[in-house]
Amino acid sequence: MDIEKVNSMDFGEFVDVFGNVIERCPLIAAAVWSQRPFSDLEDLKKHFFAFIDALPQSGQEGILRCHPDLAGSELRRGTLTAESQREQSGAGLTTLGADERLRLEELNARYRARFGFPFVLAARFSDRAAASRELERRLLCPSAQELRTALGEVKKIGSLRLADLLRADPAKL
Amino acid sequence: MDIEKVNSMDFGEFVDVFGNVIERCPLIAAAVWSQRPFSDLEDLKKHFFAFIDALPQSGQEGILRCHPDLAGSELRRGTLTAESQREQSGAGLTTLGADERLRLEELNARYRARFGFPFVLAARFSDRAAASRELERRLLCPSAQELRTALGEVKKIGSLRLADLLRADPAKL
Repeated sequence: MDIEKVNSMDFGEFVDVFGNVIERCPLIAAAVWSQRPFSDLEDLKKHFFAFIDALPQSGQEGILRCHPDLAGSELRRGTLTAESQREQSGAGLTTLGADERLRLEELNARYRARFGFPFVLAARFSDRAAASRELERRLLCPSAQELRTALGEVKKIGSLRLADLLRADPAKL
Repeated sequence: MDIEKVNSMDFGEFVDVFGNVIERCPLIAAAVWSQRPFSDLEDLKKHFFAFIDALPQSGQEGILRCHPDLAGSELRRGTLTAESQREQSGAGLTTLGADERLRLEELNARYRARFGFPFVLAARFSDRAAASRELERRLLCPSAQELRTALGEVKKIGSLRLADLLRADPAKL
């Protein structure tokens, strides 16, 4: 879809299409609509990121807390968003053996307890082995640094989702 | 449930329980968790409202845009959240005659076009006749005043939802 199509959307359509660019945070897409018209994909992305950057720390942590665990209970229960399901599936996280899954569960739980938000990773840039290694590495980082790292991952995920949507045929969304 | 129970929740449980206090904005509950422990219901409510008040105008408009129309397409399609369904049903908005429904639809559309967000009303304080009258009245208000009025309604809705949850048996949530 081209940017003219995006700029022609009323807020209902815009939130329907872009509401999950930031996982489970339709509020952010709904806020970004106030900034239309957009000149291109980069401009649209810039407004999503600016909104995130302007939030107080509690709001930035809140965004992270709206994300699912990697290979966690939501994946097992089948309650992931369509986007998360595709991303985790592509990284091989939907077909872990029991040992790998338990290991990731234990690491996820330690991470959540340490930082107060889940481990967020742009799974499309990763695979199951890299995800585990990255989780172990980031578990040792200072909190302030980890918040910045995690928000960087949120932005990578959002960039990929936005690019997918702009490439897509709007009739198929 | 008592406030000790609330304060004992990890962020996953807290977002599961309080994620729709502000309609379709789990980000807000997820952010409020950062402010625990809470002394009582009033204190919890205060943190929800403070987060809303601290958002830039685009974010406040974004909250409104996450709300459904009264007696609108989501009600007809059955895609309202459970809370909205109960509230609109209690106000008699689920059993409108065809004429009343078309009239409300037309007013809702005019309101959305004028303000860039949907008409939000704490339906539990209203009924179908009062809702229509209020929509007609608020259609004539200046934009800045209407944003304040609408956010006041969001807070009334949130207050009632929070009070319901604190009164509820956590085993039944």
